[in-house]
Amino acid sequence: MTTTLEKRTASQQAQGQTNMLKGFTVPLTPGGKSALATLPPWHYSSDCLVVEYWADPAAIAALLPPGVAPDQKSGGRAFFWFLDWQFTGSNDELTDPARYQYREAFALVEAIFDGIPINYCPFIFVDNDAAVARGWTQGFPKKLGSVYQTRSFSAPSPAAAPLAKGSRFGASLAAHGERLATARIQLEERIADPATVFNRPTVMRRYFPQLAKAGQHKPPVDELTMSLTDNLAIVDVWVGSAELGMPQAQGEEMHAIAPLRVGRGYRLGMAYSVTDLRILKNYAA
Amino acid sequence: MTTTLEKRTASQQAQGQTNMLKGFTVPLTPGGKSALATLPPWHYSSDCLVVEYWADPAAIAALLPPGVAPDQKSGGRAFFWFLDWQFTGSNDELTDPARYQYREAFALVEAIFDGIPINYCPFIFVDNDAAVARGWTQGFPKKLGSVYQTRSFSAPSPAAAPLAKGSRFGASLAAHGERLATARIQLEERIADPATVFNRPTVMRRYFPQLAKAGQHKPPVDELTMSLTDNLAIVDVWVGSAELGMPQAQGEEMHAIAPLRVGRGYRLGMAYSVTDLRILKNYAA
Amino acid sequence: MTTTLEKRTASQQAQGQTNMLKGFTVPLTPGGKSALATLPPWHYSSDCLVVEYWADPAAIAALLPPGVAPDQKSGGRAFFWFLDWQFTGSNDELTDPARYQYREAFALVEAIFDGIPINYCPFIFVDNDAAVARGWTQGFPKKLGSVYQTRSFSAPSPAAAPLAKGSRFGASLAAHGERLATARIQLEERIADPATVFNRPTVMRRYFPQLAKAGQHKPPVDELTMSLTDNLAIVDVWVGSAELGMPQAQGEEMHAIAPLRVGRGYRLGMAYSVTDLRILKNYAA
Amino acid sequence: MTTTLEKRTASQQAQGQTNMLKGFTVPLTPGGKSALATLPPWHYSSDCLVVEYWADPAAIAALLPPGVAPDQKSGGRAFFWFLDWQFTGSNDELTDPARYQYREAFALVEAIFDGIPINYCPFIFVDNDAAVARGWTQGFPKKLGSVYQTRSFSAPSPAAAPLAKGSRFGASLAAHGERLATARIQLEERIADPATVFNRPTVMRRYFPQLAKAGQHKPPVDELTMSLTDNLAIVDVWVGSAELGMPQAQGEEMHAIAPLRVGRGYRLGMAYSVTDLRILKNYAA
Repeated sequence: MTTTLEKRTASQQAQGQTNMLKGFTVPLTPGGKSALATLPPWHYSSDCLVVEYWADPAAIAALLPPGVAPDQKSGGRAFFWFLDWQFTGSNDELTDPARYQYREAFALVEAIFDGIPINYCPFIFVDNDAAVARGWTQGFPKKLGSVYQTRSFSAPSPAAAPLAKGSRFGASLAAHGERLATARIQLEERIADPATVFNRPTVMRRYFPQLAKAGQHKPPVDELTMSLTDNLAIVDVWVGSAELGMPQAQGEEMHAIAPLRVGRGYRLGMAYSVTDLRILKNYAA
Repeated sequence: MTTTLEKRTASQQAQGQTNMLKGFTVPLTPGGKSALATLPPWHYSSDCLVVEYWADPAAIAALLPPGVAPDQKSGGRAFFWFLDWQFTGSNDELTDPARYQYREAFALVEAIFDGIPINYCPFIFVDNDAAVARGWTQGFPKKLGSVYQTRSFSAPSPAAAPLAKGSRFGASLAAHGERLATARIQLEERIADPATVFNRPTVMRRYFPQLAKAGQHKPPVDELTMSLTDNLAIVDVWVGSAELGMPQAQGEEMHAIAPLRVGRGYRLGMAYSVTDLRILKNYAA
Repeated sequence: MTTTLEKRTASQQAQGQTNMLKGFTVPLTPGGKSALATLPPWHYSSDCLVVEYWADPAAIAALLPPGVAPDQKSGGRAFFWFLDWQFTGSNDELTDPARYQYREAFALVEAIFDGIPINYCPFIFVDNDAAVARGWTQGFPKKLGSVYQTRSFSAPSPAAAPLAKGSRFGASLAAHGERLATARIQLEERIADPATVFNRPTVMRRYFPQLAKAGQHKPPVDELTMSLTDNLAIVDVWVGSAELGMPQAQGEEMHAIAPLRVGRGYRLGMAYSVTDLRILKNYAA
Repeated sequence: MTTTLEKRTASQQAQGQTNMLKGFTVPLTPGGKSALATLPPWHYSSDCLVVEYWADPAAIAALLPPGVAPDQKSGGRAFFWFLDWQFTGSNDELTDPARYQYREAFALVEAIFDGIPINYCPFIFVDNDAAVARGWTQGFPKKLGSVYQTRSFSAPSPAAAPLAKGSRFGASLAAHGERLATARIQLEERIADPATVFNRPTVMRRYFPQLAKAGQHKPPVDELTMSLTDNLAIVDVWVGSAELGMPQAQGEEMHAIAPLRVGRGYRLGMAYSVTDLRILKNYAA
């Protein structure tokens, strides 16, 4: 048996050298077409509905990883985002919207890392597996959800929701048949400089565990990361009044940071590319 | 027992008079909120990707209902449409996109009714139950499908697909896990007058059967209808090159009118309101 | 023009006579394969989780159509059902589960018609378009929902939920991302004679409206119907304790008949065939 | 600024020590309820439809990771599985089927590792995010798909598909609206000893990449793993004739191992628990 085994292994070693399995994530294949994600660059453009709100500061603090501190000046300030995304890599993914277009919703809570004001992302939901896979490699703790937002169409109609004073937009997030967030905004005015509002980097916890028994409490990947966005563009920013609800749901904890008070609502376009990731801290080391 | 019965019926008759069950379609309820569709007006705005193509004229003829004739001059000309729709009625449905936003794909085949060139709709798919219900009342033979089209976003990016020369858009339709149509277009130029292309009324067969045995071959509703669109707006029309595939699928017949030849591709915005329906012919009478 | 038209119409009339468009529901096609529903017989087998409960009798009364009276003896008794269905017609639909298997949830409220105790169905949800189409022809006011119930598997495991004392089952219904019903039951004992519990015929309102303006308040189809079930089999009936919640949801009215008190829970298998429908009353006449 | 920063960091360090973020996978939260996966044990029970087939041995060889050799005696033998799974952990997940019940389809190809006949899993699809997350930690390269199989119901009907000679079962897998696999089997006889068929351990490649630029070609997790199944039970095994198709799909490579020849079909129940994972090889070291 040993002889046979060695022959097989030798044959395999030879073959292994020619096996060029491709893919940035699983599944790895000879052609690299099956992989959920290919190597960056990843290009994104979106429409966004965003609601500023304030949550219980203690609930926010309880979600922060080591080394990330509550932002005392924020008093629990957070933003809830709904996004309709279009993605493309280098293979015309743009024209395969069934696989690559997706919708997303997430919470960003204001915090401090290394003295710098940041946004930390404790919860995020998408409706697409490629988006889950890319997100996990960045540190976004993505789960599946169904996400909707009112869109703005160019053909005039009571159904068109133009970018104009008085237009109303709604948005919602559900997971596994439970409503997790519902928002409505009404546009008041266009704002010239979005940087006054959206100016903190986004920080996440990149985490992948070990299932083998001896390692179940020692994740091989446990890093604090910062999203790097090339060619960031924020356009057509409107601001207005807002409502936001985050009802309690069985099997979820996001309602711990439900709004105690709601601020302004925003509607904007955003685009950027991803080619890299900054690792702020390696908890696994 | 008879006495009791009569009393109950009497009581019920009284109550029946006060029972104001509301809803344009089922389910009828006291408040009218559960109904899939409320009374018109129904307002719609959409983005559309459209591919002109030619199918087997005999296959088209075989789909036409009595009184609708093949358009001999068309030589099998048809259009395949993909639409991202936003709907609103009179109750701010616009801000509940999870319930009322939807996607649609359909074939229109050129035909003649009463000497007038029309488009007849033999196949149509949507991803929303309210859209199925409203469509059935108009005569659109809607089934469920999953529909996607590349969108045009305002934030500049390789993922943005702007309305500009060279931009590429894809679209697809699947039902129950089978791909029914795949399209790609590449924009070449904006056209000023869409009426040269999109100028035929849409005709459908409104049909609802009887399940009671004696009536299984005598549908109570069997009408030839024409869609009436108030305040029709067609905007931002671009034309370009196109590809279209309609693969054979188990349990479907739409591939009978698959493209033999593909024409031009269009990308446009469209809006209208529905308040009425024209009945061209009553087959059930 | 007239000459051409007449020729066309004549040609079409000839062709119309040979055009054998098939399908019990739309879409009608030459081969009859596209139709959502073909002519009966329709055969069904299911696993069911059922919860007995009591709702506000006034809320039940408000949902009943003319001629159907509240059952004074019931005191608001109702049943909420969750079903995993397998459907087949005469074309081996059984082996195309992606198109024909489906899940369903509905409320039945106790009422009286013509002196006879019946169950009336005011709300019902399914996750499949063929099931919507067949249901509408019977009078079930079906909408789309996502429905789940714990299943019983034969391979032994803490995950198997065997039909045995102490086994726990859960079920849920959501529509458009809002939870409409959640149930849990725990089995106590097998019962020999289900007819003591499930013995009332099911009555529905078959309804299809007219969109043409003059007829918007005169539906062409408005009948009170009774479901006819051939070869009804109810097997493996277990009874136990139950919980049931029907939370308030935006854009729905089913919570009007939410439980005030919950009774027993049932888990059973059920099968029947449908070939006919009884029309109890024609409201449209 | 430095002073402030140090204070914040100190405060955070203190707080970090009390922050007990829980979850086996992301998202990590104070209560551990949001995590896609909690720590094992994970318990599973399923119904399975399995088709034995032979693919191009070169295509199989091209999918094997280093150290895994083609099984020359197999001649390209593979199995395609469809599974309806019920999952439970230690928190009654069993009664939340909307979150935890799921469907799965995968290919297993026969191969050799270290002289031992194994099954290697190059492609696998599920319809649930918790299943994706648990699977990735084991090494299953899961993507999202929609999976269906004919079920066997106890209430007798032409729709019931009993476990009996002559019963027909179908199954299908689609991803993003493209059909990836379709199978049909017809039962012939019950077999007593499934170990003659299903007796190889399952081997996978556990893989999680690095997005930070310097590490994009050095995945932190790249292991060859073997699934460990406690309390494995295989019950009610039936065998019969089979059909299997794996059509070519855009953006997928699974059709590279499409059937050249189809063997027998199986229908069975299977259960096991997962508490551990064997790491066969660490490619990342």
